[in-house]
Amino acid sequence: MQIDAASSDERYQIRKLDVTDKNKGFMELLQQLTVCDSVSDEEFQKRFEELRSCGDDHVICVIEDLVLSKIVATGSVFIEKKFIRNCGKVGHVEDVVVDSSARGLQLGKKVIGFLVDHARMTGCYKVILDCSADNKAFYEKCGFKEKEIQMVKYFI
Amino acid sequence: MQIDAASSDERYQIRKLDVTDKNKGFMELLQQLTVCDSVSDEEFQKRFEELRSCGDDHVICVIEDLVLSKIVATGSVFIEKKFIRNCGKVGHVEDVVVDSSARGLQLGKKVIGFLVDHARMTGCYKVILDCSADNKAFYEKCGFKEKEIQMVKYFI
Repeated sequence: MQIDAASSDERYQIRKLDVTDKNKGFMELLQQLTVCDSVSDEEFQKRFEELRSCGDDHVICVIEDLVLSKIVATGSVFIEKKFIRNCGKVGHVEDVVVDSSARGLQLGKKVIGFLVDHARMTGCYKVILDCSADNKAFYEKCGFKEKEIQMVKYFI
Repeated sequence: MQIDAASSDERYQIRKLDVTDKNKGFMELLQQLTVCDSVSDEEFQKRFEELRSCGDDHVICVIEDLVLSKIVATGSVFIEKKFIRNCGKVGHVEDVVVDSSARGLQLGKKVIGFLVDHARMTGCYKVILDCSADNKAFYEKCGFKEKEIQMVKYFI
């Protein structure tokens, strides 16, 4: 299906995560990213409220396909408060994914734009993320540059 | 000065950041890490209280040299709450630095151990950090492995 720019803007709504998005395939979308078992409605609501209580310090962006009532892209940003850089703040972007059926529509770029704008507006001096070598070119198109090495230690 | 293991354990106390640590060179220590202008006592206290209100979700570890009443090592960890991994949690380690006069005493390893233990105890499934190529070997000794690429976008 070919979608022109105008109808694409109407069809794909970008906004913050709503608690009802669990019924619109939000968790199934995250499963395309990594290990993501199904969680109960109660668990989802509890985590949603925990994150909502952080206010602007933790924001999850989603794009809804209004025709299908389905979440087709998401990403999150949380704001770390530091002592360095004159008590500065840093935005950390995490868990960015676009539904496999909705690629090529620039939805990933829109999600990153939303999260970067949020970090800028909350006064961050930088925004960072970790990505695979495969996704590096995408983030470069979004204005990011390679900086350091991500190291990890797993507990389970 | 040569310090044996026993006296080193007595001399170097590891604990959470206290608001009075500003008077023990905490900000001067951070200046060895990156751009870190001096902040007023009021600014420091405000940020300290903001972070303290996060409880276990944001912990700053320090090592005090009790002989000199000076903070000689620090590092922080904050706990990110996710929907993936069965509403899992990830520890993010940031701002690790050891005073240039106190290197070679394994204080960095102690700080990382403190932060990793905290992340494990709060139920994280992994702990991550970003480092330069120069520091990679140190973190490998601490049990970390290279995973992804850190990307950054600066606002200022």
